[in-house]
Amino acid sequence: MSLFPSVATFEAALANLPEPDLEAVEAASLRQAVLTKPAGSLGRLEEIALFMAGWQGSARPHADRIRAAVFAGNHGVVAQGVSAFPPEVTQQMVANFRAGGAAINALAGACGAELSVIPLDLDRPTGDISQEPALSEAECLAALSAGAEVVTPGTELLFVGEMGIGNTTPAAALCAQSFGGAAESWVGRGTGIDDAGVARKTRAVEQALAFHASECTSPFETLRRLGGREIAAMAGAILAARMNRVPVLLDGFICCAAIAPLVAAVPGFTAHCLAAHCSAEAGHVRLLEKLGLEPLLQLGMRLGEGTGAAVAAQIVRSALAAHNGMATFAEAAVAKAL
Amino acid sequence: MSLFPSVATFEAALANLPEPDLEAVEAASLRQAVLTKPAGSLGRLEEIALFMAGWQGSARPHADRIRAAVFAGNHGVVAQGVSAFPPEVTQQMVANFRAGGAAINALAGACGAELSVIPLDLDRPTGDISQEPALSEAECLAALSAGAEVVTPGTELLFVGEMGIGNTTPAAALCAQSFGGAAESWVGRGTGIDDAGVARKTRAVEQALAFHASECTSPFETLRRLGGREIAAMAGAILAARMNRVPVLLDGFICCAAIAPLVAAVPGFTAHCLAAHCSAEAGHVRLLEKLGLEPLLQLGMRLGEGTGAAVAAQIVRSALAAHNGMATFAEAAVAKAL
Repeated sequence: MSLFPSVATFEAALANLPEPDLEAVEAASLRQAVLTKPAGSLGRLEEIALFMAGWQGSARPHADRIRAAVFAGNHGVVAQGVSAFPPEVTQQMVANFRAGGAAINALAGACGAELSVIPLDLDRPTGDISQEPALSEAECLAALSAGAEVVTPGTELLFVGEMGIGNTTPAAALCAQSFGGAAESWVGRGTGIDDAGVARKTRAVEQALAFHASECTSPFETLRRLGGREIAAMAGAILAARMNRVPVLLDGFICCAAIAPLVAAVPGFTAHCLAAHCSAEAGHVRLLEKLGLEPLLQLGMRLGEGTGAAVAAQIVRSALAAHNGMATFAEAAVAKAL
Repeated sequence: MSLFPSVATFEAALANLPEPDLEAVEAASLRQAVLTKPAGSLGRLEEIALFMAGWQGSARPHADRIRAAVFAGNHGVVAQGVSAFPPEVTQQMVANFRAGGAAINALAGACGAELSVIPLDLDRPTGDISQEPALSEAECLAALSAGAEVVTPGTELLFVGEMGIGNTTPAAALCAQSFGGAAESWVGRGTGIDDAGVARKTRAVEQALAFHASECTSPFETLRRLGGREIAAMAGAILAARMNRVPVLLDGFICCAAIAPLVAAVPGFTAHCLAAHCSAEAGHVRLLEKLGLEPLLQLGMRLGEGTGAAVAAQIVRSALAAHNGMATFAEAAVAKAL
């Protein structure tokens, strides 16, 4: 069953986003105020507890059932020489994810997340965005729906990651189209290209913007023309999470770029999201500003796969361990402030 | 058995600090280079793996056996009105730690640390540092040794925390004495004092510096005169960890202030330490600069107890999960960069 069988269903979802449960936020806030610590002394851990309370609709939220999904896709724009790795690495890494040997396997294990690996038509790369749309309407809807399917009942926290040789190029194009600014301000070194590669990548983004900009009149069209299958899948998953009031930890540059067209159209779209980290990819700092999010971590990571979100998921778990596990001043017979 | 039966043993330890195993660092670095990810793409997680390798003397370091200790002490300087909480809260919080109801219980549990709670003569507060030494020589040695005892064989990672109403005041005095700067630049709001409280606290630190500065001619004397039992215990634990090549996650302002006199005397002292976080306590940013450490987290925490270190311990665990669990390019048959 496809969650987004038509463009209209996607647009209707975006126009009808649920809001958090403010009564649960208030109840969680009242609990925080009586736990055995100086008021506010757990900093962002307290904010996270309230955020999770609002989206789960519970004064005692949990992050025991964490859903993680890595989507993989291939990109026609690699023909422009935009990546340091050959495109067959996408498929090879999918095999590595399935065998348990990638960074996300280790890190999802460390945070207790259940990981799904979802390759999307790897034998059919997208169109080269520098000269044609990445996807047809049907292909883009299929990718959005594939993403939405990972949001299963009972999920307490979701994060999504990606693998796709060349995918920082469409990500940069999505950012430039959604938020403006020169192509070069959104283009980084990806998996590690040299200066000549950066120049080729910048040129490819410029060509893509010149070719598509006038037709990018909706979030769907921007995603379809400038994105990719794994990118649309991430957008679909994050949108479906909002529809189901499931809180989301956003990973790095590509994950955030995937929702850039949605945020440009609906500024409050990220209300159900925490930014896991600020990656070392050049455009991510600015992208997080555009999304209105303060990252939890800044560890110079730039791997993708959901790895930054997996590390940050432990901060969420810590926040809830404190929120749920601590005694109150009354329970512990501890005096409050003078 | 006392690890520091005399001042001479303490000074000898500080003069003979072991260094990391550079062969293990090199072996870990060679492994990082062939794991299935772009070189450097795990950022500080890679640095942490090398750091842990060096101190554990193993290319495959672990953080499964994490030792955490919370030391508690009382402070004569509370007579100067430097805290928002009454001093009996120290004892009440020790009971809360033992009952499992404090933030550190929840957060140590979340990172899998084994937690010890060590109250130090709570019925005998230190001398009021604004007019007398905090501790006698014997008392300071006893506290240093009590700290050192927590570094048990097999410990793979150590962190220490504290509870002691009033203890940001001696911490600020230790920083000012060790690194210079006006008292007010090291004084913060602690558990949440108002402006008048900050003024009283600043005055107490100024009086302490005026009274003791000329006698603070060694790290031991500075600790003894301006510190406190839980503060000396943390210093003893962190020094004993270095003697045993056990890596340490430093917690917040007071934990870092405890080693300020040692770092001022031996600038390389923190080589076996990672800074877990930068707390919201005013002086901590500057103190971390003086220690030469970049914090892993900046979450606005300011609770003490070792809570910041407990959250950061999960980052260390994640770093080692990736380092030890990932496949190499050869094992996974993934192509390397072009």
